[in-house]
Amino acid sequence: MKLYSMPSSGNSYKLRLLLALLGQAYDRIDVEYGSAALAEAHASGALPFGKAPALHLDDGRVLAESNAILCYLGEGTPYIPADAFERARMLSWMFWEQNQHEGVIAVRAALLQYPHRKADATPEALARLLDRGNGLLQIMDDRLARHDWLAGTALSLADICLYAYTHTAETRGGYDLSPFPALRNWLARIASLDGYIGLHD
Amino acid sequence: MKLYSMPSSGNSYKLRLLLALLGQAYDRIDVEYGSAALAEAHASGALPFGKAPALHLDDGRVLAESNAILCYLGEGTPYIPADAFERARMLSWMFWEQNQHEGVIAVRAALLQYPHRKADATPEALARLLDRGNGLLQIMDDRLARHDWLAGTALSLADICLYAYTHTAETRGGYDLSPFPALRNWLARIASLDGYIGLHD
Ligand SMILES: N[C@@H](CCC(=O)N[C@@H](CS)C(=O)NCC(=O)O)C(=O)O
Ligand SMILES: N[C@@H](CCC(=O)N[C@@H](CS)C(=O)NCC(=O)O)C(=O)O
Repeated sequence: MKLYSMPSSGNSYKLRLLLALLGQAYDRIDVEYGSAALAEAHASGALPFGKAPALHLDDGRVLAESNAILCYLGEGTPYIPADAFERARMLSWMFWEQNQHEGVIAVRAALLQYPHRKADATPEALARLLDRGNGLLQIMDDRLARHDWLAGTALSLADICLYAYTHTAETRGGYDLSPFPALRNWLARIASLDGYIGLHD
Repeated sequence: MKLYSMPSSGNSYKLRLLLALLGQAYDRIDVEYGSAALAEAHASGALPFGKAPALHLDDGRVLAESNAILCYLGEGTPYIPADAFERARMLSWMFWEQNQHEGVIAVRAALLQYPHRKADATPEALARLLDRGNGLLQIMDDRLARHDWLAGTALSLADICLYAYTHTAETRGGYDLSPFPALRNWLARIASLDGYIGLHD
């Protein structure tokens, strides 16, 4: 099993984190922005939708989209709730992450971090993303004030998924997390899990 | 079972289409932009993430996110592949839809259709969305030139999901679908399914 993974990207980190928590071995090919490896991965068709991460199975089958790969690797593990409704609730957070959270919280971090995004980092764009992001963090905090985990009663793929860009919202995205105490406790709960690795581990 | 559904929205239409194909009865509450019903749904907390659609079960449990609701309603039906990898591939298209397709193809249609989005409909924005959208339609056409359906060997939730905004890409989004013959055949295949309903049926 081979993972095309972008070292700086939360979407790739989700998978590295799940694989670490599961103690599962795999080969990793780093494809950072601007690297020859990324250009090569694009050219060879290793990234089905033109994006990292992508998972290559030993038999040649390839899967794209971080959250779909989470679901595939998570099959048969305790990270997917057994109850059908809680499973759907887990997916609900994961689709919300791709449709709302990533396009705001990860994008604000990208505008601040990546040189090739500088032109889009206008004060108006950053202010709008800050405001929208605070609304999204509030939605997570509301849930986490009443429950330890986003879906069901235990850690699930939804937590791993949303941890990726939320845990760097402060350091890379410029969000202030102090108004969200339940969310901060949840971040700490995940960082203390057996097998946990950080973005740069 | 009660569905909060926005009549003009592809995300809500996905669910109306699946329920029609399944022949499943439900109550429908229409919450169009600008309507009192939408304001009321927001105020009463009927929309967990502040968006339509939302599914309310008879026991009071509520589920948001169109694609998560598709998965919930699709459990145990032939629209979810039995094979774990094909199931993940189905989800891959569905996450891609929320992360890439919807934010381009549906957004271009929204900029052209909804009065409250007019200010964002600059020529530059429309040109960029046209260009990016053509790239996304090409990805679908590439798959559909080799296979009848997006995932596995039969109609799945991925097809229902991506049909929603793709089938109005021409009429509402201003895309030209003539360079994508496999995609056009796939649209026709879905429109001829038993139980099919259109966006405004
Ligand atoms: N929805 C995709 C998004 C993946 C994505 O946007 N990847 C970016 C990095 S975060 C990428 O590969 N960019 C490289 C490129 O566009 O060349 C997922 O969750 O896997
Ligand atoms: N990711 C969500 C997106 C839903 C969404 O954006 N809904 C829009 C209509 S397409 C909405 O409810 N807007 C009403 C509002 O914001 O007040 C889904 O797939 O269900």
